[in-house]
Formats: sequence, structure tokens, C-alpha cells
Amino acid sequence: MQSIGIFDSGLGGLTVYKELKRLLPNEKFIYFGDTARVPYGSKSPDTIRKYAFEISYFLAQKKIKLMVVACNTASSVALNELKNAFRFPVIGVVQAAVETASSMEHISKIGVIGTKGTIKSKTYQNLLIEKLMNVSVFSKPCPIFVPIIEEGLIDSIIMKTTMDYYLKSFLNKKLDAIILGCTHYPIIEEQIFNFFNKKVKTINPGKAVAEEVKRILSKNAIENTENAGNIQDEFFLSDKQENFKKIAKNFLGFSISRVNIVKNSII
Amino acid sequence: MQSIGIFDSGLGGLTVYKELKRLLPNEKFIYFGDTARVPYGSKSPDTIRKYAFEISYFLAQKKIKLMVVACNTASSVALNELKNAFRFPVIGVVQAAVETASSMEHISKIGVIGTKGTIKSKTYQNLLIEKLMNVSVFSKPCPIFVPIIEEGLIDSIIMKTTMDYYLKSFLNKKLDAIILGCTHYPIIEEQIFNFFNKKVKTINPGKAVAEEVKRILSKNAIENTENAGNIQDEFFLSDKQENFKKIAKNFLGFSISRVNIVKNSII
Repeated sequence: MQSIGIFDSGLGGLTVYKELKRLLPNEKFIYFGDTARVPYGSKSPDTIRKYAFEISYFLAQKKIKLMVVACNTASSVALNELKNAFRFPVIGVVQAAVETASSMEHISKIGVIGTKGTIKSKTYQNLLIEKLMNVSVFSKPCPIFVPIIEEGLIDSIIMKTTMDYYLKSFLNKKLDAIILGCTHYPIIEEQIFNFFNKKVKTINPGKAVAEEVKRILSKNAIENTENAGNIQDEFFLSDKQENFKKIAKNFLGFSISRVNIVKNSII
Repeated sequence: MQSIGIFDSGLGGLTVYKELKRLLPNEKFIYFGDTARVPYGSKSPDTIRKYAFEISYFLAQKKIKLMVVACNTASSVALNELKNAFRFPVIGVVQAAVETASSMEHISKIGVIGTKGTIKSKTYQNLLIEKLMNVSVFSKPCPIFVPIIEEGLIDSIIMKTTMDYYLKSFLNKKLDAIILGCTHYPIIEEQIFNFFNKKVKTINPGKAVAEEVKRILSKNAIENTENAGNIQDEFFLSDKQENFKKIAKNFLGFSISRVNIVKNSII
């Protein structure tokens, strides 16, 4: 049985894995988190492409049938190169989120939040304008959200003041939707939804990519239709991660029992 | 003329370079910032030691006469191994800060703030207890400080609420001093000093290491006594850094004109 590879800069991509697992319970997944070099959001496109290739090659050796780039930053700067290089389909969260946005009705003003690398690449902006035509895109890098989420302070006064700082300029824009363009942000989806008085739709790229993967598997007739039963997904990290189980549970809502550390040979 | 190497996980070590440059204006410095893999604070000791060795080897090839480990996390987990491996003296900010603390009078309660890696290693704590004997050490990892400083929000409400969150438990401890155990923290030295109503001495490991280096150069008779005049210090990074000049000016108070990007061969 061939697996679906998931590649992320770290553990944030577990929010994407969660959506894939939910929508495609019969599939086996192999997750790779580049915890030795996380985060990608502040690194240069060249360096991110190099890391993305190394990890994709690692997953290719596992004979995956499809790869999900769960990291928004890597999807923003490396997706076309990865698609051109590898034989299996490569699906990025950014591209999937734009597909979802373009399928929604009455979207003329859209906000995008993410890392500096994601926002600076303008990939969301360019794809949204290409797909939705008459749309205004308002982008904002929000680099302090991730460490606050990782500290578990999502309902704190620190998060409230930081959210106000980053998002208040969106308030008078009358947004129709906002894309949560970083794997960590679905963790604060409710807080963001409430910040906009429940009047702005939130788009979770993890959910979008799960739907896109389902479509591609079906179209290529490579889905696994039998019950996967006891098949165990595999988790690889490039560095040991303190409190991995706790973090995984925070991102997933369920525990992961075993994780493999990959040292050096490829990375 | 032989140089002094400075190694850091990124650009924060420029605050250490600033102190070295001020105290030792006749020396030439070679700075290496591992911007391709920054930050070290959340990575495992094994991985940090590997990175530290690669970069020290790069600096060794530049025939340096002494190396400063400007990164508190690397000093905490890799200093002894580096000292044992290389022929030139290796001086860490952590060890220098402890020397400074031990030379101060009336220090019986001391606070230490830093990254998760620095605090978890207990290196500050163990060295302080070893050197100062009757001392109580109170440690706290403060991982949100760095992104707030990097966002330039040092006088914001976000910084105020975050400082309150991290440091309020120190308020009833009647600290005599607090060690700013991360290269970014000297940028908020005044804010921390004010938080404690100017009643707690702040120890800047960058200043401490500059004094230690001066001592070692003199003791080994390897200082450069002639005016260095127009000698240009060299700056190497493992990844391009957006807004490098702006960040450098923020950390240093003066500009750096040229930076070299080191790709791949060693790193």
C-alpha cells in the first residue's frame, strides 16, 4: 500500500495532517517535520527550496504516491520546482486554499495572514488575483502568533493585544474571508473569527488541501478504498522535539505514540 | 593580523560584537551568524553541538586566534566540547556572565532569563551555584521576547503584557541581579531594569564576555596593540537575511556595509 507524504518545516503541519486523516481515513500517511531547521518563515526562498528538495527526496525514497506540502512558506516559494522535479503529484496548501476561495460565493475582499516569507512571496496574492479576477487582497505577516501559540497562550491578554495589533487594520476593510496562511493559525481560528465579530469567513488551508488531495486520488484512481484498519502512520523529524507528544496532542487532539529522528544522511 | 571569531545562531550576536568592538577597538573580528538554521533555542543539544562544530571549523579555517560563542544556547550546551576540540581559546557568553556575577558584591538571589534550550540545560544555574556558593537561582525561559524584539515592538503594549507575564513571578523574589541570557535581551535592558523599579542589576553577557576576552588576550599576549585603523571586520551568514542592514543597525547602533553568504560547502 502506497502512502501519502506530508512535508512541513516543523510540527505545525500536524494541523494539516489532522484534516487529511479525517477526510481520508483509509490512507496511510508519512509525515516529515524539519525540526532541525524550523522555522522557514524568515528564511530566504533559495534556502527553503534547498530544504524542500532534500525532504521531498527523503519522502520519494519511501515510494509515496502523492506529496502534500503542508508548510505555507514552502508552498509559496517552492511548489512549482517540486512539481517539475518529482513524478508523484505535489499538492501545496497555498494553492489548495486559493482553490477553496475561488469556489466560494461573494468573495471580493480577502485577507491573508502568514509568515514573512509567505507574505513577501506574494504567491497567495498573485494566485488569488489570477483565479478570482475581481478581488482585492490585503496581506499581513504576523510572526508573533506562532510563538504565542507554541507557548499555549491562545486565550491570553498577550494574544489579544497581538491580534489587535496585527488585525485591526483589516477591521475597516469589510473582508469577506481571511486565509489562515500558516499551519499554526487554525489553532486560533475561533479567536480570529470572534475578532471579526463572526462576520468574516475563515479559510483553513489544511481543510482545503485535504479536499484537493481527495479529488486528485480519485481522479488518478490511486485512492485506497479498503479499510486501512490498523495501519500506523509514520512520523519523521530532523531533530528531537521536547514535549513532542504534548505538542502533537495540542495540534491534533489525539496522541502520536512513536516518532523517528532522521539524522544527517539526507538532511 | 589574526582575528577574533564570533559565532552566533543568527544576528542577535551582533549585540555581543558591539561590546567586543567597543572594548577592543584594535582587534579585527570575523562574525558568523547561522541564519539558515536560526533559532537554536528550541533545538536539541545534539543538533546544536553539530551546528556549533561546523561553524567553529569554518572559523578555524580563517585562522582565528580566539573564538567567542555569542549564542547563549550554544554556550550552554556545547562549550566544553568546543574547548576540548579546538586549539584556540573558546570563550562563551554564559561562562563570562557567571564570572561577572561572581565578582559582584551582595549577590544572593539571581534571576536568569533565556531561551528554552538555555534554561533547560541548567548551565547558568549549575555554574552560578558552583561559583557563588550561597546563591539562589530563579530561571525562566521567555521565548516570545525574541520575535517581539525582531518586530521592533520593544515599547509596545505587547511587550509590556509579555514582560509582565514572564517576569511577574520574579517580583516577590527580591532579586539582586538578573542575567539577560539571550543575545536579544540587551535591546530591552532598560525596559527590564524599569520593570524591577531600577532595583535589580542587569547583567549583559555581551559586556561580560568582552571583558573576559580582553583578559585572555592580555594573559596570552596575543592582543593587537597597534591601532587597527581601517581594518574591516568580516561578516558571514549561512542564509541571506531580509533587512540585514536595518536589523544590524538596530542591534549595533551603526551600519555594516558588506556581508558574505556562505552556502553549503561547510554548512
